[in-house]
Amino acid sequence: MSADPASREEASLGPLAIIAGAGDLPRLVAEEVRNTGRSLFVIAVDGEADADFSAFPTARLPIGAAGRLKALLVERNCRDVLMAGSFRRPRFSDIEWDMSAVKAALLPAIMRLKRGGDDKVVNGVVQIFESEGFRIVGPADVVPRLVAPTGTLGRVKPGRKARADIDYGFQAIRQMGPLDIGQAVIVLDGRVIAVEAAEGTNAMVARCSDLRREGRISVPPPSGVLIKSAKPGQELRLDMPVAGVETIRVAKDAGLEGIAVEAGRVLVPRIDDVRRAADEAGLFFVGIDTGSGSSRRP
Amino acid sequence: MSADPASREEASLGPLAIIAGAGDLPRLVAEEVRNTGRSLFVIAVDGEADADFSAFPTARLPIGAAGRLKALLVERNCRDVLMAGSFRRPRFSDIEWDMSAVKAALLPAIMRLKRGGDDKVVNGVVQIFESEGFRIVGPADVVPRLVAPTGTLGRVKPGRKARADIDYGFQAIRQMGPLDIGQAVIVLDGRVIAVEAAEGTNAMVARCSDLRREGRISVPPPSGVLIKSAKPGQELRLDMPVAGVETIRVAKDAGLEGIAVEAGRVLVPRIDDVRRAADEAGLFFVGIDTGSGSSRRP
Repeated sequence: MSADPASREEASLGPLAIIAGAGDLPRLVAEEVRNTGRSLFVIAVDGEADADFSAFPTARLPIGAAGRLKALLVERNCRDVLMAGSFRRPRFSDIEWDMSAVKAALLPAIMRLKRGGDDKVVNGVVQIFESEGFRIVGPADVVPRLVAPTGTLGRVKPGRKARADIDYGFQAIRQMGPLDIGQAVIVLDGRVIAVEAAEGTNAMVARCSDLRREGRISVPPPSGVLIKSAKPGQELRLDMPVAGVETIRVAKDAGLEGIAVEAGRVLVPRIDDVRRAADEAGLFFVGIDTGSGSSRRP
Repeated sequence: MSADPASREEASLGPLAIIAGAGDLPRLVAEEVRNTGRSLFVIAVDGEADADFSAFPTARLPIGAAGRLKALLVERNCRDVLMAGSFRRPRFSDIEWDMSAVKAALLPAIMRLKRGGDDKVVNGVVQIFESEGFRIVGPADVVPRLVAPTGTLGRVKPGRKARADIDYGFQAIRQMGPLDIGQAVIVLDGRVIAVEAAEGTNAMVARCSDLRREGRISVPPPSGVLIKSAKPGQELRLDMPVAGVETIRVAKDAGLEGIAVEAGRVLVPRIDDVRRAADEAGLFFVGIDTGSGSSRRP
């Protein structure tokens, strides 16, 4: 492995720092990064990171410990930083900003985190790291095989009506992009029946069961397509949408017909499990090339 | 009363037919119409209308009984038709289309009801009635005092941040209008945290309690503003948004700070009760002139 030129080049980048939030994804990314031969160091965020990182060199830090984080990254010789997993929006008053080693020049960027939508928060985080000389990389940069390919995974394919609903869903997401909402929608029979804002994709999908029970959806299941996409201008290094086995499970429970994700711009962890889960659930799972797939950093 | 020229003019319009769906609104409209001196006739839709209409001449009809409905309207000399209350989207296969007295020419309009969003359905309904020589009127046409006035109802006024959130919410609604979604949104600290699609305003508002419990809203209650508006191009005669005492109750439960509605384009039934409920809940309830308020039929 060390004779491979690509690996030598990666090695010269130094270890990858993975800042881990909640969920399985950070560990999965760590495993995949290790498989590429690159060394890594996990920073598990207190109160968020909940996977088992015992197989990797790991430190735990509270959110906001900017000074300690910087010292740790410098000590470990990490220039590249990857954030994975989900992070709740903390109350800013609850964060103990450890500013000892962080320049006062960062304050404007930190204050920018305080107001505004996810996009603003994410861009603020990127700015903070880059102004300190670190480089934010995305899962797609270090493990391209985590990203949704174009085409159907598994045996079930979307029919003509579902394909029309998929097109309309991607249109709707594009239209809502400037509002920093609509990372996912559900379309049924040419109609958007659910829009994701702060609740997260799974909660939005689960809502469809309520809609059916209340008679607000008149078409019997399986019907309705979940469309999930990056927003226009979304910072994919820090904030890439994810769809996987759990998404299939909630979609099946909600009586949906299938799932369409934007190829190249949505993470699909454990793709073989996803294929199998789609087949078992009888749902389609399709990656759609929307034309913006190649530019991961708009 | 009969000496009043306006009343004589109204009398010459013949009785108003009120097609009643679910909820209190149809009866309220009927009461208000009777107060204006105009006679009326209620058609309560089976499985939907659930208020007590015993104080008014009333017939019950199943949905889709187009032929019987037409005969009834002709027999009662009703040219003006008002639809009030909520109607679930029926399964089209469940409707027994009683076509005996309805021209085959209506079929395209009926078929148009079958696919597409609320706007398309509503425009299809208008077309069906108008092609049969009836005139669809809205609650705002016959009882203007049901419509949200400009300004604050009650004692609590929105502060500077809430006013900024209100502006942003109306912008977001405008942006989503072409998608036939977003009749209401919730904005908190410059961020859209919930968008209404098929679930209805109250369900969307109730979702905020979940968001708080899950730590997805970091600002403590009361915070967040419900913004409710007509969509651009919305057919206000058939499908006017409603906000009232019940809206205040769910908003209070969800820890919101207040409610802003589009003046002139949202129904606010029992406005004195609304004022009192807002004061009791400690919420603001404000009508905002968005500039599109005067043209009720875009």
